[in-house]
Amino acid sequence: MSRIASITVHDIRFPTSLELDGSDAVNVDPDYSAAYVITRTDDGEEGHGFVFTCGRGNEVIVKAIEAYAALLQRRDVDELIYDLGGASRRLVHDSQLRWLGPEKGVSQMACGALVSSLWDLRAKREGKPLWLLLSGMSPEEIVDVVDFTHISDALSPAQALDILRAGQDGKAERIASLQAEGFPAYTTSPGWLGYSDEKLVRLSRQAAAEGFSMIKLKVGGSLADDQRRLRLAREAVGDLPIAIDANQRWDVPEAIEWVRQLEDFRPYWVEEPTSTDDILGHAAIRAGVSPTRVATGEAVANRIVFKQLLQAKAIDVLQLDSTRVAGVNENIANLLLAARFGVPVCPHAGGVGLCELVQHFSFFDYAAVSASQEDRMIEYVDHLHEHFAEPVRIGGGRYAAPQRPGTGAEMLAASRARWEFPSGQGWLDVGGRTAVTAPGLASAGASR
Amino acid sequence: MSRIASITVHDIRFPTSLELDGSDAVNVDPDYSAAYVITRTDDGEEGHGFVFTCGRGNEVIVKAIEAYAALLQRRDVDELIYDLGGASRRLVHDSQLRWLGPEKGVSQMACGALVSSLWDLRAKREGKPLWLLLSGMSPEEIVDVVDFTHISDALSPAQALDILRAGQDGKAERIASLQAEGFPAYTTSPGWLGYSDEKLVRLSRQAAAEGFSMIKLKVGGSLADDQRRLRLAREAVGDLPIAIDANQRWDVPEAIEWVRQLEDFRPYWVEEPTSTDDILGHAAIRAGVSPTRVATGEAVANRIVFKQLLQAKAIDVLQLDSTRVAGVNENIANLLLAARFGVPVCPHAGGVGLCELVQHFSFFDYAAVSASQEDRMIEYVDHLHEHFAEPVRIGGGRYAAPQRPGTGAEMLAASRARWEFPSGQGWLDVGGRTAVTAPGLASAGASR
Repeated sequence: MSRIASITVHDIRFPTSLELDGSDAVNVDPDYSAAYVITRTDDGEEGHGFVFTCGRGNEVIVKAIEAYAALLQRRDVDELIYDLGGASRRLVHDSQLRWLGPEKGVSQMACGALVSSLWDLRAKREGKPLWLLLSGMSPEEIVDVVDFTHISDALSPAQALDILRAGQDGKAERIASLQAEGFPAYTTSPGWLGYSDEKLVRLSRQAAAEGFSMIKLKVGGSLADDQRRLRLAREAVGDLPIAIDANQRWDVPEAIEWVRQLEDFRPYWVEEPTSTDDILGHAAIRAGVSPTRVATGEAVANRIVFKQLLQAKAIDVLQLDSTRVAGVNENIANLLLAARFGVPVCPHAGGVGLCELVQHFSFFDYAAVSASQEDRMIEYVDHLHEHFAEPVRIGGGRYAAPQRPGTGAEMLAASRARWEFPSGQGWLDVGGRTAVTAPGLASAGASR
Repeated sequence: MSRIASITVHDIRFPTSLELDGSDAVNVDPDYSAAYVITRTDDGEEGHGFVFTCGRGNEVIVKAIEAYAALLQRRDVDELIYDLGGASRRLVHDSQLRWLGPEKGVSQMACGALVSSLWDLRAKREGKPLWLLLSGMSPEEIVDVVDFTHISDALSPAQALDILRAGQDGKAERIASLQAEGFPAYTTSPGWLGYSDEKLVRLSRQAAAEGFSMIKLKVGGSLADDQRRLRLAREAVGDLPIAIDANQRWDVPEAIEWVRQLEDFRPYWVEEPTSTDDILGHAAIRAGVSPTRVATGEAVANRIVFKQLLQAKAIDVLQLDSTRVAGVNENIANLLLAARFGVPVCPHAGGVGLCELVQHFSFFDYAAVSASQEDRMIEYVDHLHEHFAEPVRIGGGRYAAPQRPGTGAEMLAASRARWEFPSGQGWLDVGGRTAVTAPGLASAGASR
């Protein structure tokens, strides 16, 4: 019998604030980071997982992962990875740790990294990329890993089974199509607030030429800037859809007013118009900005909030995030909720490693859940992929199907060593010049 | 000019799981704990604050407080404590740390401890207990410390000013009445799930005899047990109100069904019938269990969720918690929201130190916000008060007005030293026998 031998957690950060990549109206100076966990077994297997953060506070997630890791030490590996529903519930519902959330923020993300490291172990054991592992599991096995607590009024296990059984029809053909043609992508690379107009136009044209389904622009700094930048982007890409993303910058009435003043540029969706905790606010905004769609999800804490966004008809697009919730299990719940309400899932990505992780959920969704690519695309941002064992591959504006066994979380050992914070050689080389070590310093540059 | 000289954080835990005090259907084995912060100035002043937790994971909050504390180091004390709105916003909206929530869970609670330590400094500087400091501030000063971000659609600064200006009428008389007669309390001490029927009956009778306005019973373990225990309690206290508390145990339909099967015992309110994230669920439950009231709040992450609970008419009683949200400022927002919607505030207390903290908000609410005691009472649990510099004083079932300058957070130095985890003498004496060090061990006993 093989047991969990060790669980080690690393604080890995990249000094992205030096370039203002990833800058928006709220996240003015992110240093893309990962609280990175490796779960090792007595047999030498490794499961990798991480939580994405914006820099400062990454050490808090590290500490939280260590707290939950104590619940897994020396446990039987097979019992964990062949009962991933039970493993997840043991962490998420721990009687004392639960108070830290419950099921939200630091503690939920920490659970997610550990749970996903167990999925990585399982997928590697079976020699499959996560999306193919999930697509090959029976509807009953999938339902067994979902925690229906506090969502059963909207999605019962029986309803989930119905969705998954329907998803078996034509599954083999859809998997073959994914292997051959991949899945549509859109890109946010042109639209960061920190970029010049010239860079915005150049990258927008490039994105259209490369075949992306949509581009996305950050908004919410100043209305005049947003109107100018949207006009430039619209001129650059013609009829290609353009989404806008406010990163929770507005209160409800302000969101409606602001978006209406951008509607001449035909935004495809407005993303995070207000606090993602504000379900009723999103419903009001959706009613107020129609026909512009409303999208949210990267900061939605758990399946219970997604359930309500769907019940309240508050969103047109559900943007699941791979490291915000309690791991693979909770994202399966989110896919099933979206399918139940007929809302398309367009996952959030970017940061560091989020593209590598999140693609698996869209591939699984198409193969075995919604069975549709209509109105569905995965966000793509061209950052930091080179640090991963299997970087995403983009061609013709589409994600190619990942092939390597595992969840996609595995970062190269050399990258992990170089960007370990604060002692890695990369950090010694840039010597404290980022926002990580100088809070607020970089924001002056970003808010121009 | 005096600056912040040091901010030290301590992991303090009490082995309460050994006695099953505080056990309920979800929190089966809490070890009441505090992530405790002391903010010291160059002049030797001290501001104290803490976050309450259930044991495991207290170290995660400690780490989070340290992360936010870095934003306050060496800053001008007067600038912080005479612009507490600015100080709070600087912490809560830090561009990188914000990702950890946003505004929820570990990070929000950590902000709260620091913000409240600054209020403790301010109140001590002015020689006033917090409730008198707040009651003496002008409506404009109070509005200035509130963060209206994401709640302005329900409560604008102008509306808050109107509420506070109305609260000036008769304020001196109400303060005099609070000083003379205190504020009504109810007690949860009889009703923990871990207690025997005999202990339940004895403590219920005692609570009624002592003049408490209500008793509260934990429910949600088994329906038959709940019916038996409620019958016993109803026989013991006659017509005294009895609230029931499910600690988020149920899904929505189950909550309605279960509470209906207890309605013969006339529960005054049902508390936390389901996930506190589930605003729409609370609204459905409230409609389904009327005339039983619905109460929640101890796990509500922030003012944005409270706003929606009020907008959706989902609660009859708002139970603010002193260490769940981002400190004194956010609880002022919660009081103002409740006043705007005409919903009474009955704060959550218990744990360790929550009674000492939360009483200030009800006293301030009566003095200068809602100006009413109707349907209002503060929870009281008879645990661990002896560790505080000014333990709450209860007489005739009422909280006496706190007198000592500060927020009430200050724990005795000897208690802090004895129960520092894991090295304090108290922990050496009990030697690893609690649920802190043995996850899950105590739950078998509590669930009987």
